[in-house]
Amino acid sequence: MKRVAVGIDVGGTFAKLVAVDEAGRALKTGRLPTVLGRGPGPFIEGLSGAVKALAGELGRPVAAVGLGIAGDVDGERGVLRYSPNLDGWRDVELARPMAKRLGRPVRIENDANAAAWGIYRAELNGKSRNLLAVTLGTGVGGGLVLGGRLHAGSLGSAGEIGHMTVVPGGEPCACGGRGHLEAYAGGRNIVRRYAERMGLSGAEGLTPLDLFKRAGKGDPAAKAVWREAGEILGLALLNVAYLLNPDTVVLTGGVAAASRLFMGPIRQVLKGATFQTPVESLALKVSRLANAGALGAALLSLES
Amino acid sequence: MKRVAVGIDVGGTFAKLVAVDEAGRALKTGRLPTVLGRGPGPFIEGLSGAVKALAGELGRPVAAVGLGIAGDVDGERGVLRYSPNLDGWRDVELARPMAKRLGRPVRIENDANAAAWGIYRAELNGKSRNLLAVTLGTGVGGGLVLGGRLHAGSLGSAGEIGHMTVVPGGEPCACGGRGHLEAYAGGRNIVRRYAERMGLSGAEGLTPLDLFKRAGKGDPAAKAVWREAGEILGLALLNVAYLLNPDTVVLTGGVAAASRLFMGPIRQVLKGATFQTPVESLALKVSRLANAGALGAALLSLES
Repeated sequence: MKRVAVGIDVGGTFAKLVAVDEAGRALKTGRLPTVLGRGPGPFIEGLSGAVKALAGELGRPVAAVGLGIAGDVDGERGVLRYSPNLDGWRDVELARPMAKRLGRPVRIENDANAAAWGIYRAELNGKSRNLLAVTLGTGVGGGLVLGGRLHAGSLGSAGEIGHMTVVPGGEPCACGGRGHLEAYAGGRNIVRRYAERMGLSGAEGLTPLDLFKRAGKGDPAAKAVWREAGEILGLALLNVAYLLNPDTVVLTGGVAAASRLFMGPIRQVLKGATFQTPVESLALKVSRLANAGALGAALLSLES
Repeated sequence: MKRVAVGIDVGGTFAKLVAVDEAGRALKTGRLPTVLGRGPGPFIEGLSGAVKALAGELGRPVAAVGLGIAGDVDGERGVLRYSPNLDGWRDVELARPMAKRLGRPVRIENDANAAAWGIYRAELNGKSRNLLAVTLGTGVGGGLVLGGRLHAGSLGSAGEIGHMTVVPGGEPCACGGRGHLEAYAGGRNIVRRYAERMGLSGAEGLTPLDLFKRAGKGDPAAKAVWREAGEILGLALLNVAYLLNPDTVVLTGGVAAASRLFMGPIRQVLKGATFQTPVESLALKVSRLANAGALGAALLSLES
């Protein structure tokens, strides 16, 4: 029988759980509120309880557990260096105490890295060796699989495509920088830039989905911010193509659902590149995999 | 006794040969004019003769041969897809005919990739796992070693940092693009930008070395172009740090000899980054290794 792992995508409000077999098949899912405010102890306790409950429902032993967390994660030491979503925690040891509590190996990984691995293993199934996954949500993240291995970098912080500078001195980013990819293609900034164009005093509760609908109805400002998001994404992806020559780029996350508004501008920028070898061979896709982060974290936990 | 390979750094005018043992020690060097104009046959014949001559001088058998060539190289198939330096040759099979002639395995690789491998193996000696080597010469190239392996990408064209767009719509690049790193930090463009600042009608035979000397004497225009080269290099390296989280960046090539004029601006840009984890851990060095490209090509030929 195939071994089973549980993966957890830890968000600031909810944690999503998936039980996965070695082949990457999702067997069962769960969900629980993320317990913050009372420190890492109760947080780990809550997640561990949920893993046990899911294993019980499944009626199968769990071989390993993987956590995908937004932020700066040192997967090798199992330490969360910093997470804006988790009360701004700094240097919190997570893997070891949770492994002790569960009696199972626990691996933690940046959520976008985990999503890249999930897509690589469970969606592309060997159809890629060199992959960039871009997570388009409130912010923009990324994960890399290079030569068939997760590339987390020297300190585990690789893949931060959202904070690559595309336009020096350009739009402000939430991190304090300027001209970062996220400042143009992150959901929060797509809304902010639309509000600015419309002369609104704030985002007024608008969501990227609202702007997707408005663009569909012909709203020129909405169309413009999506087009610009695509152009800046195109420039960032072209730079990645030159640097890494990946065979595949996959867009994932909530904002990727609006891809028909920005895939055209991305492709146009790529087509205009002077050096076509790394571009012509690049497959640009939108992921259809649910729970990529949790799936990937689970599969990574089985492999390490 | 250790196996020996010969590496050849094939330039447009000269080819430099190095005989290397498995440990990365250079045993003997040679040099011959690159024979172009009469097609790949005589070119291969010339290089093969030089390999045999070097092996004869050395008095030891040669186990393998590696070629580092500027341009678009498909190392896996042994095909030079395109080289501006070699008469603009396109889709020329090099490895197989040369291996047949020499009775030895022959590997070809992009010259900057080969240099990265040479620096990784013969200069850093295991002190790096994730390395970017930037070749600063007339143009700007790059090579990557990630997780201890050469990362050539899906088609072998990875590492083209010189053509990453740093300033959208910025300075013109020789490739026809705009705002590429090479347009600011390549030797040809450093000279061009100086000539423009000085209102000269052309480069007037000036070299980067001339501008290094002029900057040393306080020439404000020379100082400015070197500083700008450093700032743009800093932005490019910061993007690489965010994307790949390497432990080491090594600058090599003729223009790297002027590093004291641009290392300050590079470090200033890196210091100003909002996300310091991948920056603080980054060692930024200038290579002291001679013949890195030929050495790396030789070592790669022994390993494949």
